[in-house]
Amino acid sequence: MRLRAVEGIPEIVEGDDIGGMLDELDQPAATEVVVIASTIVSKAEGRGRCLDEYEASRRARAIADRLNRRDGGERDPRFAQAVLAESEELIIEDPFLLSATHFGHIGVNAGIDRTNLPEDADILLMPANPMDSAQRIHNQLQHSPPVIISDTSGRPFRRGQRGVAIGWAGIPATRDWRGYRDRRGKVLQVTVEAVVDELASAANLVTGESDEGRPVVYVEDWYQGPFEGDDELFRPIETDFVRQALREWEFDQPSAGD
Amino acid sequence: MRLRAVEGIPEIVEGDDIGGMLDELDQPAATEVVVIASTIVSKAEGRGRCLDEYEASRRARAIADRLNRRDGGERDPRFAQAVLAESEELIIEDPFLLSATHFGHIGVNAGIDRTNLPEDADILLMPANPMDSAQRIHNQLQHSPPVIISDTSGRPFRRGQRGVAIGWAGIPATRDWRGYRDRRGKVLQVTVEAVVDELASAANLVTGESDEGRPVVYVEDWYQGPFEGDDELFRPIETDFVRQALREWEFDQPSAGD
Repeated sequence: MRLRAVEGIPEIVEGDDIGGMLDELDQPAATEVVVIASTIVSKAEGRGRCLDEYEASRRARAIADRLNRRDGGERDPRFAQAVLAESEELIIEDPFLLSATHFGHIGVNAGIDRTNLPEDADILLMPANPMDSAQRIHNQLQHSPPVIISDTSGRPFRRGQRGVAIGWAGIPATRDWRGYRDRRGKVLQVTVEAVVDELASAANLVTGESDEGRPVVYVEDWYQGPFEGDDELFRPIETDFVRQALREWEFDQPSAGD
Repeated sequence: MRLRAVEGIPEIVEGDDIGGMLDELDQPAATEVVVIASTIVSKAEGRGRCLDEYEASRRARAIADRLNRRDGGERDPRFAQAVLAESEELIIEDPFLLSATHFGHIGVNAGIDRTNLPEDADILLMPANPMDSAQRIHNQLQHSPPVIISDTSGRPFRRGQRGVAIGWAGIPATRDWRGYRDRRGKVLQVTVEAVVDELASAANLVTGESDEGRPVVYVEDWYQGPFEGDDELFRPIETDFVRQALREWEFDQPSAGD
């Protein structure tokens, strides 16, 4: 397996055709997995926003006030409003905002970026529907290789961020090893491998500081054609015990202002 | 970045010198990251166990009974005892066992395997101290390359398993991008990258069905010498809100037997 960053990608602006640009710069073969940082997809889709496009609701003001009381910060309630607008559910409101986006990804601040912004924007939203975005780029590319839209995010239990997939096309999200057996004929315990997340993590090692001019990575010599798997990457709430537990949980440390 | 599985690794048994074996089969250079599946480290360290080495405590019997009532299964209370013995804390007891191991990793069943077992063993425990194991192998290898001991595990919010690091040596767990700036001079939001986990995920794509004869992967053309970072991969409980929330949570679905 080999990974290489595509060189020479210009600053992406609204309306850019990412598939066409990649075909022109360095056309990916049908078996090269194309991993694209969500930032440039967001930029091409015009997802930059100014905070004065948002009017803070009572709830957004309460959220920002509580966080500011806690740490003496100066959060803008309009940012909290933007997070609410991008969220299907705000799972934690304190001591930070953890939300489930409308498309199913769970992340801090609904994945809204405040660096690597388009001109004149204060924030950059995630693509509205990364599955559609991935499908569109997959279709645009002449040889229709697998496409993954990646983001970096933190996670429970372990410190640090790592690459994850938020959209994909031309490849299942997971690989199903059910039915495979070990050397002694026993059926394997590990049955579902989240390959798109592993590919996004691998690509993130090559991208480095994320979006500094190397937002697209090709993975060669891994994909060898269709395999068993499915697209259910985001856990449904019924089997997501962590999300259930967090809904009931309350942060009980005193605020600086209390 | 290139990844290749080391070919020709024999079945590992207790007492095997993994570093010496790798130097002989395919000596890694000082800049090749050596990712080793924990299974073979456990086997070399004699971590296979028979269930009749365990005597189920009252608590272990209660745990197994509850799970069996729930789904009509036939869990052996001695397995629950083995999980308890390997755990610093059992975080969830129902509807499955989620525990923090003594060395800090959080996983289902304390990471105990029931496939890919040594001869005559019923279960395979994780290495007792994977940091020490990684350091030992790092020291054994002639060119002292970075060494990562990997495992596959599930995670909250997202389905499927992916590779993670449980021990490492010769490389920090995380890479610190603090102080780096984006194209427009703004300090980056993503500051701590969990590189050992990303490397373990990348390697898992090459390993495939885990331990079927390809348990070691070399990562070339990524490591270019020391970088800023630290070894705090496992979150301390004070900042692990998910672990705090899970401690308080109770699974409230009725059992099949209720």
